[in-house]
Amino acid sequence: MKPLGPIPAGFTSIDGELAIDGHLASDLVRRAGGTPLFVYSRRMLAERMARLRTAMPEDLGIHFAVKANPFGPVLEAMSHLVDGFDIASAGELAMVFKAGISPQLVSFAGPGKRNDELAKAIHHGVTLNVESEGEAERALEIAAREGRTARLAIRVNPDFDLKGSGMKMGGGAKPFGVDAERVPALARHIIRSGGEWHGLHIFAGSQALSADALIETQSQTLDLAARLAGEIGAPLVHCNLGGGFGIPYFPGDEPLDIEKVGAALKARFAALPPILAETRFNIELGRYLVGEAGVYLTQIVDRKVSHGETFLVTDGGLHHQLAASGNFGTVVRRNYPVAIASRFDAPPEEEASIVGCLCTPMDKLAEKAMFPHAEVGDLVAIFCAGAYGASASPSQFLGHGPAHELLV
Amino acid sequence: MKPLGPIPAGFTSIDGELAIDGHLASDLVRRAGGTPLFVYSRRMLAERMARLRTAMPEDLGIHFAVKANPFGPVLEAMSHLVDGFDIASAGELAMVFKAGISPQLVSFAGPGKRNDELAKAIHHGVTLNVESEGEAERALEIAAREGRTARLAIRVNPDFDLKGSGMKMGGGAKPFGVDAERVPALARHIIRSGGEWHGLHIFAGSQALSADALIETQSQTLDLAARLAGEIGAPLVHCNLGGGFGIPYFPGDEPLDIEKVGAALKARFAALPPILAETRFNIELGRYLVGEAGVYLTQIVDRKVSHGETFLVTDGGLHHQLAASGNFGTVVRRNYPVAIASRFDAPPEEEASIVGCLCTPMDKLAEKAMFPHAEVGDLVAIFCAGAYGASASPSQFLGHGPAHELLV
Repeated sequence: MKPLGPIPAGFTSIDGELAIDGHLASDLVRRAGGTPLFVYSRRMLAERMARLRTAMPEDLGIHFAVKANPFGPVLEAMSHLVDGFDIASAGELAMVFKAGISPQLVSFAGPGKRNDELAKAIHHGVTLNVESEGEAERALEIAAREGRTARLAIRVNPDFDLKGSGMKMGGGAKPFGVDAERVPALARHIIRSGGEWHGLHIFAGSQALSADALIETQSQTLDLAARLAGEIGAPLVHCNLGGGFGIPYFPGDEPLDIEKVGAALKARFAALPPILAETRFNIELGRYLVGEAGVYLTQIVDRKVSHGETFLVTDGGLHHQLAASGNFGTVVRRNYPVAIASRFDAPPEEEASIVGCLCTPMDKLAEKAMFPHAEVGDLVAIFCAGAYGASASPSQFLGHGPAHELLV
Repeated sequence: MKPLGPIPAGFTSIDGELAIDGHLASDLVRRAGGTPLFVYSRRMLAERMARLRTAMPEDLGIHFAVKANPFGPVLEAMSHLVDGFDIASAGELAMVFKAGISPQLVSFAGPGKRNDELAKAIHHGVTLNVESEGEAERALEIAAREGRTARLAIRVNPDFDLKGSGMKMGGGAKPFGVDAERVPALARHIIRSGGEWHGLHIFAGSQALSADALIETQSQTLDLAARLAGEIGAPLVHCNLGGGFGIPYFPGDEPLDIEKVGAALKARFAALPPILAETRFNIELGRYLVGEAGVYLTQIVDRKVSHGETFLVTDGGLHHQLAASGNFGTVVRRNYPVAIASRFDAPPEEEASIVGCLCTPMDKLAEKAMFPHAEVGDLVAIFCAGAYGASASPSQFLGHGPAHELLV
């Protein structure tokens, strides 16, 4: 028997069935036109942001990393909640525009920006977080050719990483950003060349659940920003402190103590060195803002027994939930939080594996876990599906196509 | 320094540049409208099939598993080469119809078939490889309601697996097929209930490079088919022996000795037990037919150094080449065959990592391997990209969208 991940707080049941913001799961499925379906809760997005605002320093900007969930209605909802958006491609630029977001609020990071992407960003006045000397040069050239000024920040490859992070983005040789020791020269070059100098983007890792690790990283990030500002010899207009705030996915994971992180950051902000006194700071979060607000609903289409093991086969799968299947950057597969949505209150009574409809042994949604007895037609809920779900899965694989998506 | 996988035979160079069937890589990029681009070689598809026809018993059908590459022109090309198509969803059914393939040539396997998918398949006279007693019952009911006859084969969960297989589909508890010991009762039930009894589908694993392992599995499969036919008490009309023929991806991989596999199968076919004397056999291959005929071309957009390591950043990435990035069912990342297409003849002279444009450390296309010196604008080729590439990758991830595809 393998344990399941912890179901995020905030979900209830009505008549024994999972309810999301007061709506029965089965009603949402009907409204969306069927399963598989991603449901995102507007209320949970707002509550998460409200708690974060209280915990964090008042003058800290909170930006949303679009890559975590680019669904149009989610972007539109986030536009009323956050202070800025980080994008990773011209495709994401088009998505934020479609959601009515001002380009002034947008910054663009990513190691492989094409010239046409740089040109679009410069044309619209989006901040470019440049990832190399070569990219800075290309951006300056494009801006000069177009008679515009490029707003440039430098993405820094810091000399430290985020401890316990699921995804390290700093420390050692990396394709992201400019090694810290080369940043001052590049910044001075940008300023000399007439670029609009916007500051630094320092991103050390993602998906950390340890407040202490985040506090240490934010502290190192502020130290690095102060040191680099001094070496550049110009105040930093802006500094993106990165993200890294994780959410619990797996058995034993404990939620991040966001109040502790915020208290430490408030203490640091109260004693900033003079060179950072005028700097505007932000953090950039994706998964932390939207991950727990999403549920993936799929229907059981077969119940079968093989060599004594029970399999519940659903109409969903890794083509929508690659990470939950354990096949996206995971070494050891562990179970996400998963429940029988249509029997949400029923006690667990049998061990079963929940699998997707794809014809591959990789398509596991929950392995050998305890569930109430479920039958064909029952709904299954995969929680923590709000980030890196629909858009980070191979939706064309085996021809089933994309899932429905709904913001309630 | 890490080695690269072996480049498949059949690629040449013209003026130092990679050529695919006599076309310069850069010409193909222009023709397709840019990078990233999947190119598939019609000649290599035909040559692979011709060699397979010679090696295999004359009366063995060769079916194509659409999931490996559902690109329309590839399906159309395969329709002139193979004897049948295996699909895994109603979406793939629509794709084979669009390619002009007769439903009579199509069989449908997959553990999570929805009722509407069963109904479509029955309506069009597609063979259903049923995966459970419950699914057989649903198919029979739908056929009765529609006044049609369902053509049903049973997918068997064999008691053995394919040794050395990258993906085991048999042996022990599995969501695929019906456990062998329950197959006779289900087959008799299908026959009694008026279903058109089509036979067995026995698939033990995929991506094996050992001829001996495949020979053993095919032998066990034939033994199992004979035993089950005897227990069912009716001759087998048809038997799908599965696939499992692998291709070399990684350093040290040796190509499968297909002639040895074919010789052993010819010997078995020459001495079949009477109960299988009238049975039509086929194998079902995906990756083996198309994998080596495809190349993924992407352009270098940045060249950078971080802490002494060189990174070539491309406009492609794991959103098109998830498996090559090492993030699709792989425990230890190894390098695919990768080359600088625009300097195909040049000797390796520097160690570099080739990464994609996605803002994630998972987006590696070649790690610390030796390449000729390459600059921004150079083309990179990832080989073995013809199967489980474009359609098996999260093309929406980070908003870059799908790659171009071209059959030459």
